[in-house]
This record gives sequence, structure tokens and C-alpha cells, in this order.
Amino acid sequence: MLLVAFAVAPLLAGTAFGQDAAPEPGPVDEYLELVEASGGAELAPAFDFFTVSMLWTVIAAAMVFIMHLGFATLEAGLTQSKNTVNILFKNVWIISIGLLTYALLGFNTHYPVDSWQIPGWLGINGPIGDLGGGENDTWAYGGLSLAMTAYGDFIFQAMFAATAATIVSGAVAERVKIGSFMIYSTILVAFGYTIAGSWHWGGGWLSQLGGGEAGFYDFAGSTVVHGFGGAAALACVLILGPRKGKYTKDGIKPILGHSMPLAAVGVFLLFFGWFGFNGGSVLSANPGPLGLVFTTTALAAAAGGIASIFISMIVLKKPDLSMALNGLLAGLVSITAGADSVTPMESVIMGAVGGVIVVFSILFFDKIKIDDPVGAISVHGVCGIWGTLAVAFFGGASFMSQLIGVVAVYAFAFIFSFAVFFVIKLVMGVRVSEEEEAEGLDVAEHGAPAYNLN
Amino acid sequence: MLLVAFAVAPLLAGTAFGQDAAPEPGPVDEYLELVEASGGAELAPAFDFFTVSMLWTVIAAAMVFIMHLGFATLEAGLTQSKNTVNILFKNVWIISIGLLTYALLGFNTHYPVDSWQIPGWLGINGPIGDLGGGENDTWAYGGLSLAMTAYGDFIFQAMFAATAATIVSGAVAERVKIGSFMIYSTILVAFGYTIAGSWHWGGGWLSQLGGGEAGFYDFAGSTVVHGFGGAAALACVLILGPRKGKYTKDGIKPILGHSMPLAAVGVFLLFFGWFGFNGGSVLSANPGPLGLVFTTTALAAAAGGIASIFISMIVLKKPDLSMALNGLLAGLVSITAGADSVTPMESVIMGAVGGVIVVFSILFFDKIKIDDPVGAISVHGVCGIWGTLAVAFFGGASFMSQLIGVVAVYAFAFIFSFAVFFVIKLVMGVRVSEEEEAEGLDVAEHGAPAYNLN
Amino acid sequence: MLLVAFAVAPLLAGTAFGQDAAPEPGPVDEYLELVEASGGAELAPAFDFFTVSMLWTVIAAAMVFIMHLGFATLEAGLTQSKNTVNILFKNVWIISIGLLTYALLGFNTHYPVDSWQIPGWLGINGPIGDLGGGENDTWAYGGLSLAMTAYGDFIFQAMFAATAATIVSGAVAERVKIGSFMIYSTILVAFGYTIAGSWHWGGGWLSQLGGGEAGFYDFAGSTVVHGFGGAAALACVLILGPRKGKYTKDGIKPILGHSMPLAAVGVFLLFFGWFGFNGGSVLSANPGPLGLVFTTTALAAAAGGIASIFISMIVLKKPDLSMALNGLLAGLVSITAGADSVTPMESVIMGAVGGVIVVFSILFFDKIKIDDPVGAISVHGVCGIWGTLAVAFFGGASFMSQLIGVVAVYAFAFIFSFAVFFVIKLVMGVRVSEEEEAEGLDVAEHGAPAYNLN
Repeated sequence: MLLVAFAVAPLLAGTAFGQDAAPEPGPVDEYLELVEASGGAELAPAFDFFTVSMLWTVIAAAMVFIMHLGFATLEAGLTQSKNTVNILFKNVWIISIGLLTYALLGFNTHYPVDSWQIPGWLGINGPIGDLGGGENDTWAYGGLSLAMTAYGDFIFQAMFAATAATIVSGAVAERVKIGSFMIYSTILVAFGYTIAGSWHWGGGWLSQLGGGEAGFYDFAGSTVVHGFGGAAALACVLILGPRKGKYTKDGIKPILGHSMPLAAVGVFLLFFGWFGFNGGSVLSANPGPLGLVFTTTALAAAAGGIASIFISMIVLKKPDLSMALNGLLAGLVSITAGADSVTPMESVIMGAVGGVIVVFSILFFDKIKIDDPVGAISVHGVCGIWGTLAVAFFGGASFMSQLIGVVAVYAFAFIFSFAVFFVIKLVMGVRVSEEEEAEGLDVAEHGAPAYNLN
Repeated sequence: MLLVAFAVAPLLAGTAFGQDAAPEPGPVDEYLELVEASGGAELAPAFDFFTVSMLWTVIAAAMVFIMHLGFATLEAGLTQSKNTVNILFKNVWIISIGLLTYALLGFNTHYPVDSWQIPGWLGINGPIGDLGGGENDTWAYGGLSLAMTAYGDFIFQAMFAATAATIVSGAVAERVKIGSFMIYSTILVAFGYTIAGSWHWGGGWLSQLGGGEAGFYDFAGSTVVHGFGGAAALACVLILGPRKGKYTKDGIKPILGHSMPLAAVGVFLLFFGWFGFNGGSVLSANPGPLGLVFTTTALAAAAGGIASIFISMIVLKKPDLSMALNGLLAGLVSITAGADSVTPMESVIMGAVGGVIVVFSILFFDKIKIDDPVGAISVHGVCGIWGTLAVAFFGGASFMSQLIGVVAVYAFAFIFSFAVFFVIKLVMGVRVSEEEEAEGLDVAEHGAPAYNLN
Repeated sequence: MLLVAFAVAPLLAGTAFGQDAAPEPGPVDEYLELVEASGGAELAPAFDFFTVSMLWTVIAAAMVFIMHLGFATLEAGLTQSKNTVNILFKNVWIISIGLLTYALLGFNTHYPVDSWQIPGWLGINGPIGDLGGGENDTWAYGGLSLAMTAYGDFIFQAMFAATAATIVSGAVAERVKIGSFMIYSTILVAFGYTIAGSWHWGGGWLSQLGGGEAGFYDFAGSTVVHGFGGAAALACVLILGPRKGKYTKDGIKPILGHSMPLAAVGVFLLFFGWFGFNGGSVLSANPGPLGLVFTTTALAAAAGGIASIFISMIVLKKPDLSMALNGLLAGLVSITAGADSVTPMESVIMGAVGGVIVVFSILFFDKIKIDDPVGAISVHGVCGIWGTLAVAFFGGASFMSQLIGVVAVYAFAFIFSFAVFFVIKLVMGVRVSEEEEAEGLDVAEHGAPAYNLN
């Protein structure tokens, strides 16, 4: 009955609420104007869905933003207290320069649309300009597959952009020159990440594999964000060399992190932000995929944590906290490529395998004397490969396309990063002096220690 | 069919706005397909409301997740630095195993629906399986009283599940064996919490009191989450005994927490997450209750904080920070059962009474030599009783039903926890040796300290 | 016309889906009841838009809440460890008393509506009472320009209210008496902030400048929140005097902050919360402005950070972390007045200018021996002026109105704060003794240190 009432009501509304006279101006009129402004009658039925989708986009952007605090505290916690100011400074730099360069050229390079210079491969373009008004603010901008305004699209992607450079920050910690890192990270985030990203998310050649039928699939960026960062980090670490005193004649001398609470804060914040990272990658508030993505993301992280805990108990003979924390992150990276296309139990397997891989990978890199203070290459690089390939095993993607995508992005990231960092090394050096390394970068480079107990 | 109905509107609109030609296929068609997929024409009018409700559910789940970081930092801050790795590790364990066991059996045990083994009392069931597709992804899943997809329901409840075990973690800190705690917490979160919860939220006997007319009322879990955790904690603490050196012949020797900033970070994060805990328990984005719940939650916390501050100034002769922090939490626990059913001024009273209770309760437990390093039994257990009964005083619930609910859940939690922990004690012990306790659990159990200043 | 189109669709729907038989009761009926309860048929088309807008309001309120943790950790990090408990305590106090007084009189004083005692200037009124039910819970409450329930309006504004007092907290740190500050901050948040705020957001005289045509424009509060706090802080600092040992015969002796990680956590949390502060000030989920505001907010912060980094490298000859952090905040304060009315590139300029200003301002206040341990006067007060005037340069506001608004609010805040703090000084003193200052406020005032390493 109510349904009838409701159906009739608006019609009657004309009559019942006095539409003999023109309607009083009120909230509904304001609303209808808004709907009409938002693409006109054509788009009206979808206006509210669009509104909630756009809201989710900006909230997800804020959640991805807080991942940068997660990276900052995780990296700081896992390194020595004498290099803490340096790490925090690098993270302030990266989020700031990442957002700015993404506005200046990154967004239009990442998504060249019709302005490729080399179609499918390269489209370096200019600033965003004014993205508001007209279709940019409406449902017409991206339809259901990108249910956000152009500004929503920009800010969500901008928050992603800085992530790749942040991953490198952890791997080069405790010995990189701050000026050199500032230049390197700017080039990486402005050009490296955006070019590689355009191959996949920008509609470039990776998305067109198999005539588009068997395109490379990387839902939220196991490869194009995390793998990219991990491979870029590896190149830098090879050029930089290990920290003094880490690998001695008498074997590996662990350099312990200075604050496990900071590290734990970092991992929990990253886990929290990952709900925005993966969840926001649904690109709308579509309830079906949204619920699935939150569930697979959480379960993969949990499985990664549990797996790392048990493996560390077996291999290291103790329940190791830093392995447990890396296990959570390993699970998260492992599900990022396929969060929308696997079942909960598959996500548990994907995360658990990631949690096993990360422990052995960290031990392996240490064995071959590649010194990565926070395990970034293992967490983001190695688990990124697993996560991306796993979409072929579980999520129905083409294995060949996944493999091509991994090889292409990792190779590009490694070579781009190596070339840029090597040139910077030739021009101005990339590593602080032995005295500065011993003193710590905080005082040597920034003139102030992180802690002053009194 | 719906497509037709909807399609007409834009067409008519087309006339109104002068669209002589038929509309081009575009975002609206995608949207209409989505609406139709989501339960068909029947549910169409509600689709956007459902979408925003589901979005709120997953955001609230993320906010409840971050409470686990709050617990981790609060517990770490209020205990000694030599046990910090242990506390952080326990919290990584609990959130991970909590999510996993909730997928494996918790969800279907918490909400047995039609698969009770003992109707209204016990329904231990299996894994979640694939919860997506069909009615599970639509409004039809739970109507207005549970306006979320099945995955949304799962992930929100999964985040709650681990909370009970986390409460215990704080109370047993600084002396519990890590292996024993891992086993205990797994059993508690997998079976204890879910069985007790099924009595109320699962449609069990507590919800049917008075023929369902006077059912036990516990909006977001003062009793079934916080009280459960507090009562379970009490049982463990009785078995464990106090920390060495706490209660001496010369009286109580306070063991100070090692970092008040960590503790404060924890409480503020818990306060923040509580907006998801209580707000998400509206189970939709219904604007009326949502605004009320946010308001009563915030005001009760504030009143609890202020009350604890003044009481501590009178009783302890100083403005005590840890009492102020516990006061905020006391206010939050005190409003959790009735956040949706009292006025703002009533919420102030409920929170303030909680803030008074918590100070005296903490002093009382210390006096009777029940050693709870973080005050968890007082904050969650004692204030949980007050909060639940207060719904009878202010929110119109039946006092008898509230009392029965409290007694039943607290008794079950205490007995279940006591039995499990006691068996573990017999089999493998629950307490570290005196040497290990003196050395600290970080080095003794985990092989690494939390802090390395250099 | 669109209204007609909408009206017809449900009616056709009735036919198209064979409503020969009466519909089964189900979720849709519940939904329609809800819609009808929410203002009736009149408001039906806008119900879902209202729901998502209200959801955004409460989420934004939670994000502004977390800014209080940001302030607490930033202030603690930038001061000495012996005063950390004191700072944390002050922040617990402020958020608690801020919320309570806002319920008791703040809300109705901030928005006197029809109960001005001196129209446009002063309207001190009583408690909020029951704000739920009827039009208070519907779209009718504030239309499109305030698309939230009355409770949503209350809780969002309540979170803002405490901010002004928090800004003062940082400036008076390390020497203020806790009891005096508790009284002062209560009066400031209950009366000072709400009265000044009523001039602008409450529909008072500032909003009516130029007959309302050229009203003072301050989108989210560069002046009425941040400037207010900064000016109030200046008054207190002048009365208090500098910390012992800061300004000596031999020049300025910097007193270093004790934990840069805490400070960085604070700034990142403030940045995160600012998305709620500015984004929530859209006062609905309107996708167009929401995307713009998130974008300008983020870009201004980034530009502020980068500008401060480069200026500090030039002026201080090193990449200074605390300047970088203050630069982010400076950018955020600088965009707060105009976040909805400038382009992205204009927001970059506004933020960058803020980032330059803040460095010189901090150096300037130190030179004239105004001791502000955390730079609050510069960040909030000085950048608040710039941000407000910049809306005239970039956003089309009247320069004269902006200037009048700044002068009026800053003068009122300064005089009100000075008067209150001075009276408290006469009655009970505002500064601890030299011995207490040397010992640290934690032990002297609160009886417990913040850190206990063992």
C-alpha cells in the first residue's frame, strides 16, 4: 500500500502540496537543480549512486594518504634512532613532491587518454588545470567503471603515486644522501611510476594484451605500485651497497630497529590504509565488489601474519615480531592484484603463501648481502610477483599476460631506477661518508637528533 | 522490466529537456543494469540507500580494525618496556587469528540462523564459503535492519570478534607465556565469544527473553563484547596471579607504564574507532540514529574523561593522566549498550558515572591484589555492567532482562575462560619463570628487545 | 519539469511490475516507511542524497576528532620529555570539556538562530536538549546547504570547537599551571570561540557585511578557528613570558623537542583529519565541491611542505624536519578559508606562500622573544591571516570584508583571551614555579613521568 502511496505521492505532490501555485522553493528544488546540473535528466537516476561512489573515492584517498604515515613510522621503527629524522623527512618530502608532480604532469602522463606521444607506451603531458564543472563533475566522466569526478580521480591516484617512492625510501635507509634522494624520488614519482602505470591503468599496451581479451590484470597494484617500488628499490640498493658493519668476516651482524612500537604503528596504519587502497580501487561504491574486496584484503593479511609467525617459529626458533609484521604486509601485497576476483578461502591461501615467501626472501637477500633495512624488496617486490601471478591461478587471468606484465614493469622499474640513481651517483654521489654514516644522518644531514631525553 | 520503467523516465525527461532522439547508451544503462542485478525491480527504490549503508559498514569495519592498534599501543604504553615486543606480538596474533577463525567457523557460529545444534544456545558451524552474488549482495540479505551485503556483515563482525581476546591481553600482560596465550586466545575468539554472542546477536535465547518482547538489549556490545572480555580476563588473572613485586609486605608497589604517549595514542585511536564500533552498529546509514549514536558516544566519552579527572584530583590529589585516559574508555564502554536509545544528557550521565566507577574499581582490584596492569577488568568488565544496566534506567529496556543478560554472559565468559586457561596451565603452564619475568618477555620469549637506542 | 519525470517513473513502475497483487511486505516497504518518516513524499527524491551527506558529516566529525590526537602528539614531540604527561593531559581535557560545553551551551551560542541577546553579536544560550525526530532528522533541517541532521550538525561543530583551545595548549606548553589552563580553556572554548564563531557561521554581523552581498568568507575556518586560536595563544604567551633559559644574554638557546617521531605522527594525523575538517565543511556530499576541496587541501599542504623545506635549506642551511612539518600545516591553514573557491594551481600558490611565511614568522617571534614552543602562533595565527586574505586575491571575496573579519576575530580572540588569562593570573597564578619548571610539569603537577625505561 505504501508503495502505491509512494508511487502516487509525487504525482499528487503536484496537487496535494499545492502545485496549483508554483512550488515553494525548498530543499527538493535545490536538490533537483543539483541533479540537473549534474548531467541533466539523462543521468538523474544515477545521481545518488554517483554521489556515494564519489564520497567513497575521497575517503579512500584519505586512507591511502595515512599509509604514508604508516611507511614513515614503519621505516623509522625498523632502523637506528640516529637516522630517524632523516627517514621522517624523506617521507614528508615524498608525499609532498608526489602530490605536486602528480598535479604538474603525473596525472596526465599516467592517463594520457588521447595524448600519447608513443601510443600505448609513452604519453608525458602537462598540468591538470581546472578539472571541475561540466561532465568532469558528473557521472558522465567515467560511468560506472570510474564513478567519481575528475578531481576524485586525481586525488585518489595522486595518493597512490607517492607510494612507489616511499618503498624505495625504506630500502636505502641509513646511508643515502638526502639531496640525492630528493632528486631521485622526484624523477621516479613524476616519470617512472606514471609511465609504467600508463601501460596498465592508462589504457596502454599491457591492458591491450591478447587484443584486450587477455589483458594484464592487476586490480589495485601488486605489480604496478608495489612491484614497481620493490624493483626500483633493488636497483638503488645494488648501487648503494650495504650499511657499514652489516656483513662482516664473522657473518651477518643484525642492525636492530630502534623502536618496535613505531614499527607496529606503521604496519597497522598500512593495514588500515590498505582498505582504502584496495577498496577504493573498486572505483565506485558498488556493494557487491566492495564487500568482497574488504573481506579478501583482511583475510589475506591475517593469513600472511599467521603464516609468517609459524614459519619464523620454525626457522628462527622464536615468535618474531618483525616477521609477523612483515607477514601482514606480505599478505596485503599478495592480495592486491586479485582482491576483487578470488574467494575468501583463496585469499587466505594467497596471503599465507605470501607470508611464507616473505620470511625466506628476507633471509635470502641477507644471505646474498643485499642490505634492505626494512625488508621492502621482499615485501613489495617479491610478494608483488606472487600476488600478480596468483590472479592467474585463482582469479582467472591469463598466466602469460600476468608474466609479461610482471617482467615488463619490474624490468622497466629496475632499469629506470638504476639509470637515474647511477647518473646521480656520477654527478653528486648517492652515499654519505663513512663518518656521517657512523654519526647518523640526523645530525650529519639535518643538524638535529630525533630524540632528546631530558 | 525495471529497465523499461526506468527507461521511460529519462525518455519523458528527454522530452522535457528537449531530447528528440533516443538517449545514447551510457552510464545510466550501466547503472540500471546494476540496479536490476541487485535484486531486480522490487528493490530498485532502495538501491542507493543500500549502497550508502553498505559503504558505511565497511568504513566502520576499518575503524573497528584500527581499535586493535589502539589496544596494542595502550597496553604497550601502560606496561614496562621490557615486555613491549610481547604485547605488540600478541595484538598482531589476535587480529590475525580472530579474522581467520571468524571465517573458518566464527561467523556461522555467531549467527547460526537455521543451524543451531542446541536451539538458542549453541550452533557451532563451518566456514563462510562464498558469500557473494544473488541475494547475498543485495538489500534482500538483511532488509533495513541489516542494510549490508553478506560480506559486509562478515567483515564488520569479524573486526568485533578479536576485541574480546584483546581485552584479556592487557590484563595478563608481563607474565603470560606467549605460546599458552596464543592457544587460549584462539579458543576464546573462535568459540567463547561466538557462542555467547549467538545468544544475543545471533537470535538466541537472550534475544527471546519475555517472548521477544523484553529481550536483552545491548546495542553495540557493552556486555557481549566488553563485558565478555573483562570477565574472561578476570578468570585468567586469578589463575596467573600478580606480577612479581607488585604486592609486597610494605604495600602496593606501582609498576609504572613505560610510555604515556603510546598509551594516549591508544586511547585516542580507540575513541576514534568507537565511532565505527557504535556507529556501525546502526547497521545502516539511517541518518536519524546515526547522528544520535555519534553524539551520545562522544558525549559519554567526554563525560567519563572529565569525571575521572575530577575524581582522581580528589582521591589521588593530582590530575592523573592514566585515570583520565581510562575515564574516556569507561565512558565509551558505558554508552555502548544504549548509544541509540538515550538522549544526549542521559549519555553524559551514563558516561560520567562510568568515569567515577572506573577509578574506584581500579583502586579496588589493586586492593584485593588482583593485578590487572592496564585496568582492563575495570574498564571493560565493570563499566560493561553499568552500561548494560543503564539501558534499563534510561533507555527503556527491561531491568530483569538486562540483569539476566549480564549474569549469563559474564558467568559464561568467566567459566569458559577459567576452564580453558586452567587446562592449558595443567598441560603446558601459563606463566613464564621468575627469571624470564625479571628479564622481560621480549628477550626471554621473542629474542629481541623493543628499543635499541644508539 | 524534472519533478514530473520523477513522479511518473514510480507510477509506471507500479504497472510494469504487475502490481495486480499487493506486494509482499519486505525491505522496500521498510525503506518507503523510512523515506516517508523522513519528511514525507515532498522530500522523497532527495532522501538518499541526504543519507550519504549525513554519513559524510559524521565520518568527517570522526576525522576532525583524530586531529586532537594529532595536536597532542605534535605538541608532545616538539617539547621536552619532562612535560609530556602534562601535554597529553591537557589534550584529553580539552577534547572532553570542549564536547561537553558545546552540548551545554556552545552549540546554541555558536548558532543562536532566533535567540540572539544582541542581534548579530551575542547569543549565549542553553543546552542542546533532544535534537532528534521530526524535521531535525531530515533534509528539512538545513536543505542542501546543510545536508545533515541536527545531531550531525552538532557533532561536527563540536569537534571543531575544541580545536581553538588546543592551539593555545601548544603555545603555553612547559610552563603553564595545569589548574589555571583547565579553567582558561573551558572559558575559551565555551564562550570565546562560540561567540566569535557566531558572527560568521552563526549568521551574525560578519556574514552580513555589505548587506550580505559581500559577507566575510571563511570556508572552513582559517580565521574563525585557526586565527582565533593563534591570536588567543599570543595573548597567553605575552602574559606567561618565555620558558626559563630560552632567551639568554648569549642569544637564543633552542630547547629541542624530545621526539620527532611523535611530532611527525601528529602532523600526518592533522593532515589526514584536515580532509574531514575542510571536506566536511562542504556540508553535504555534493561531488563537485567535495573533489575540489580534497584536491586543493592536499596540494596546498604539499606546496607548504616543499616551500618550507627549500626556505629552510636556504635560511637555515639544512633540510629541517620541524620546518617541513610546520610547512605542511602552514599550507593547510592557508587553504582552509578558500578550499572550495580556488583552482588547484591557486591552491599550490596559497600553500607555498604559507610555507614561506611560517619559516620567517617562527624566526621572527623567536627574535622578539615571544616563546611559542611549537610554532602555533605562526602556523595558525599568521598563516590564518594569509589564508583568509588570499580568498580575496584568488577566490573572489571582498578584500575589505576579509580584512574586517580578520581584524575583528583576531582582536576579539586576543582581548578575550588576555582578559580571561589575566584575571586567572591575578586570582591563582598561571605559571608554575621555577623549581617546578626545572623539574618538569609531569612530576611536579601530575606526580608521574611520561617515560619509565627499564
